[in-house]
Amino acid sequence: MHEPGKNRTVRDVGEFALIRRLQKRLGRRPQPVPLGDDAAVLNWRENTPLVVTCDIQMEGIHFRRSYLTPEGIGYRAMAVNLSDLAAMGAVPEYAVVSLGLPGHFSVDELDALYDGFENALSRFGGEIVGGNLSFSPGRLLVDITLIGRPAARRVLTRSGARPGDRIYLTGTCGAAALGFLVLNRLPPEKRKRFAPLVQAHLAPVPLIALGSRLAEIEGITAAIDTSDGLVQDLGHICEASRVGAVLFAEALPVPPLAQELCRELGRDLQSIILGGGEDYQLLFTTRPAVSEEAVRRLARETGSSVQCIGEIVAGEGVWLQEGKSRRRLKASGWDHFRQEAAPE
Amino acid sequence: MHEPGKNRTVRDVGEFALIRRLQKRLGRRPQPVPLGDDAAVLNWRENTPLVVTCDIQMEGIHFRRSYLTPEGIGYRAMAVNLSDLAAMGAVPEYAVVSLGLPGHFSVDELDALYDGFENALSRFGGEIVGGNLSFSPGRLLVDITLIGRPAARRVLTRSGARPGDRIYLTGTCGAAALGFLVLNRLPPEKRKRFAPLVQAHLAPVPLIALGSRLAEIEGITAAIDTSDGLVQDLGHICEASRVGAVLFAEALPVPPLAQELCRELGRDLQSIILGGGEDYQLLFTTRPAVSEEAVRRLARETGSSVQCIGEIVAGEGVWLQEGKSRRRLKASGWDHFRQEAAPE
Repeated sequence: MHEPGKNRTVRDVGEFALIRRLQKRLGRRPQPVPLGDDAAVLNWRENTPLVVTCDIQMEGIHFRRSYLTPEGIGYRAMAVNLSDLAAMGAVPEYAVVSLGLPGHFSVDELDALYDGFENALSRFGGEIVGGNLSFSPGRLLVDITLIGRPAARRVLTRSGARPGDRIYLTGTCGAAALGFLVLNRLPPEKRKRFAPLVQAHLAPVPLIALGSRLAEIEGITAAIDTSDGLVQDLGHICEASRVGAVLFAEALPVPPLAQELCRELGRDLQSIILGGGEDYQLLFTTRPAVSEEAVRRLARETGSSVQCIGEIVAGEGVWLQEGKSRRRLKASGWDHFRQEAAPE
Repeated sequence: MHEPGKNRTVRDVGEFALIRRLQKRLGRRPQPVPLGDDAAVLNWRENTPLVVTCDIQMEGIHFRRSYLTPEGIGYRAMAVNLSDLAAMGAVPEYAVVSLGLPGHFSVDELDALYDGFENALSRFGGEIVGGNLSFSPGRLLVDITLIGRPAARRVLTRSGARPGDRIYLTGTCGAAALGFLVLNRLPPEKRKRFAPLVQAHLAPVPLIALGSRLAEIEGITAAIDTSDGLVQDLGHICEASRVGAVLFAEALPVPPLAQELCRELGRDLQSIILGGGEDYQLLFTTRPAVSEEAVRRLARETGSSVQCIGEIVAGEGVWLQEGKSRRRLKASGWDHFRQEAAPE
């Protein structure tokens, strides 16, 4: 894919090729789940395995202080991490928080940041048990490591999808990217109208309860959370499971107010639904024997909604079926080294 | 200590008052060791507890690329984290690595960074099991979370020191700070002469084996690694144990070449020995019944050296005994929010 050469940068190669590179290098010692899923699953003596995930959030890259309070930053950073546990069917136990604080950051702001962490943990479980404070010139940094345990006898992974499986999505995709557009492209007086989209960007809800319930059902074959964008995240499942996927254009749920906003901004709605990241919904696959009604009931009982949006097929790639035509989609979502700000 | 007020910044308050503040806030749910030690000790079902620590290393703050290769950065970041486990008498099992990479960082440099991580892990134990790659504008960031297990039936903490205990230090203190001075104050042609000091700064050795052996001995009452500076770190033991400490000036080991370097640079050697940080030696206290010979043998068997440098006393504060005079020392070591570069 890339020419070998001395001076390739991480930007040349891109996030996902780098991750594959590290997987190859590091994936020698056996663990219950190979490297590269939403979280690591680790043997711990003869006991319940550990499910461990970490994520760094950096001012100006992952969030901007112009539209997030310190409390909001804390909530969002924790929620984003919790979502990785949700995708594995794990429940949070412990959080370790590493902070890089600019010298002008106030003690009140630090308290508010912790209020945000604890808002998330009190809703979804887990407690802060340690961390590290460091000076950071200019930018606020929040790096959280979460340690959870499997909610069921197994964890959900990206690698179990099989041809014939149905593909489900909770909520909608694209809402968070649209919310980001509202914040960055609309004048303040017009933003209020699109508050649900802004909320989707600022305060995602990690689906811990649903992930836990899904892990209990054998017929759920793979899961991931939608952080990079629908096509890209479905592509991760396809790659890990060595299958392809077809999305049904007509079945893709449209975020509320999305059509109106796209008209206002002259944007293409479908490409935002397919490529917009940071929704932190669950995307999962089920054996055909698992009834749509059962899946819907689970989602309802855990406070979310779900839609069957496609089907796993033999082969490779992510395809879009519109009427009778089927075209292959290019992953157009988030790559940390190819974009320098949140998605547009 | 500080006037209450709306606009206090983290720099006004300082790292250690902030940590105490967070301890108060977070220390509600019981764990085997209260918040604020070198690492968190966490119950995991009915099994071996987890010992968890994290530390962020940031280009320009914790290291400079002018004198560390990517491999050296990786080794050092991992070693610094491992040292926190050593101080608890824990052995490393798993590492999770969160990286913030500038776009111009090359793939070869990323490989070299991982070479450095693995150099440290292959020497001291543990394996990388997961992580996160993110874009970071300008500065390389390395945040590592380590998960270890106690080497013995208990962990070492800061809080068990009692009056009458002897205070031991491995190796020397001040060597890393002197090495930093060599790199920053001496012209390149003069640096070679002071290579052991530079090495102490660039490539600290986490004392995992010694920490493990110390944890097995009941008479070892407290331990910490010297990351902030001798007086400050001893002060952490005193505060956690509610005792005071007397250092014997004549017993403090002097790093090799330190006198010569201090003469050359016109620096006061004693203040560097007492205040210079980042040596990552072990500082620990023993009941009087533990013989000095036994401690020396343990150190020798695990490849280090040890010196009795003082005594725990009733009361508070860290004191320096020089001949017949005794004066109280002010902690003059490292505070992340009060300095903006490595110690001088």
